[in-house]
Amino acid sequence: MIFMKNKAVCLISGGIDSSVTAYLAKKENYLVYALTINYGQQHKKEIISAKKIAKLLRAEDHIILNIDFKKFGGSSLTDKLIEIESNRNLDDIGKNIPSTYVPARNTVFLSLALAYSEAIDADAIFIGVTSTDYSGYPDCRKKYIQAFQQMAKLATKKGIEGKTINIKTPLIDKSKAEIIKIGLDLKVPFKNTWSCYKGEKKACGRCDSCLLRLRGFMESKNKDPIKYDFLPNWYKI
Amino acid sequence: MIFMKNKAVCLISGGIDSSVTAYLAKKENYLVYALTINYGQQHKKEIISAKKIAKLLRAEDHIILNIDFKKFGGSSLTDKLIEIESNRNLDDIGKNIPSTYVPARNTVFLSLALAYSEAIDADAIFIGVTSTDYSGYPDCRKKYIQAFQQMAKLATKKGIEGKTINIKTPLIDKSKAEIIKIGLDLKVPFKNTWSCYKGEKKACGRCDSCLLRLRGFMESKNKDPIKYDFLPNWYKI
Repeated sequence: MIFMKNKAVCLISGGIDSSVTAYLAKKENYLVYALTINYGQQHKKEIISAKKIAKLLRAEDHIILNIDFKKFGGSSLTDKLIEIESNRNLDDIGKNIPSTYVPARNTVFLSLALAYSEAIDADAIFIGVTSTDYSGYPDCRKKYIQAFQQMAKLATKKGIEGKTINIKTPLIDKSKAEIIKIGLDLKVPFKNTWSCYKGEKKACGRCDSCLLRLRGFMESKNKDPIKYDFLPNWYKI
Repeated sequence: MIFMKNKAVCLISGGIDSSVTAYLAKKENYLVYALTINYGQQHKKEIISAKKIAKLLRAEDHIILNIDFKKFGGSSLTDKLIEIESNRNLDDIGKNIPSTYVPARNTVFLSLALAYSEAIDADAIFIGVTSTDYSGYPDCRKKYIQAFQQMAKLATKKGIEGKTINIKTPLIDKSKAEIIKIGLDLKVPFKNTWSCYKGEKKACGRCDSCLLRLRGFMESKNKDPIKYDFLPNWYKI
């Protein structure tokens, strides 16, 4: 009897959470089909990292899809005129919705993953959302993911046939430190990941994403292998 | 007191249903923000029609967003190697899912409309889905739209603030003949719409979309103003 592996679409952004999530899909014995959305971020560092991760992970395929979110505006990640928060107090991150929120981004990403899943007959979609360090984004919450799952059942040909494409969020309850520990166990090449909202040569060490990443590494008692332009005074390892 | 009109994002594909839907939004006194998704269809006739409709409707803005669905494959509308059904018996249309089904298309379209709505602070999204002539697509059913609405409430910044972006489907229960009658009342310029799945100079008159359109005009006792390469023998007006 030939054992057929199931397929999973893994949304890979190039950051820590999505990279660890994709490695978890691989560990769960899925054939990984990587999907990266180039949504008009101000820089391309994330895309370069996503490519490296998909390659090192030996994904079956890697689709990079361009969508010009800049046409909509409304986020500092796609609009140069809106300033990205920096040097914030860690306790303030997650209290409200920051400028880096991209309208309905996860909904668009999951919808595209759903389209890809239907086309290749995949059973699962892996997305690296976390509700702990979610930085105030509405579309990182558990009840949002559940609602998407409900909708996906009705949206698809598979759903009509009584099958489901499972939306898997293995990190949703994990802190950044826990995610980093899981990633180190799975040998995720963190040196090839990119989290910084800015696209300079080195990570800025000041934006919310750098701060959460640095705190995660500090709390997990591991050194972040990437280079920073600046390190906050609380970061000690 | 200044009366502020509410904004609505209207998905306009260039066909009859979405054009009538956008005119209904205008009639309901919304400021219309048109959104057309160029998803890699084999032809561009739909996009040209969408532009004309948005212009004639005097939309506040019209965003045309490119997404290359061809990368996913799986539909005869984006993949030349898959044949489009033609000359089918009208009773057979809608019984099963045809080759023209584009995986998760309405979910992707609605998600992008949701992103646009959030960015411009719109209160409603208008989409011209119909469950009557839905040609066997899962994502044209009422319960699917309701599930999307539920998900959208949780997905957005507006939702967190207790407000809702309403997904409006004024045609969902209407037959093509009824839609055409509504459109004629609203003076929708049907001669500028395009429904044919093929992109030749004239509409083919053989694909499911042409057949449903022709039956609609016949049943509404009006002549279709566009030109056809072929007319089925049952079409009499």
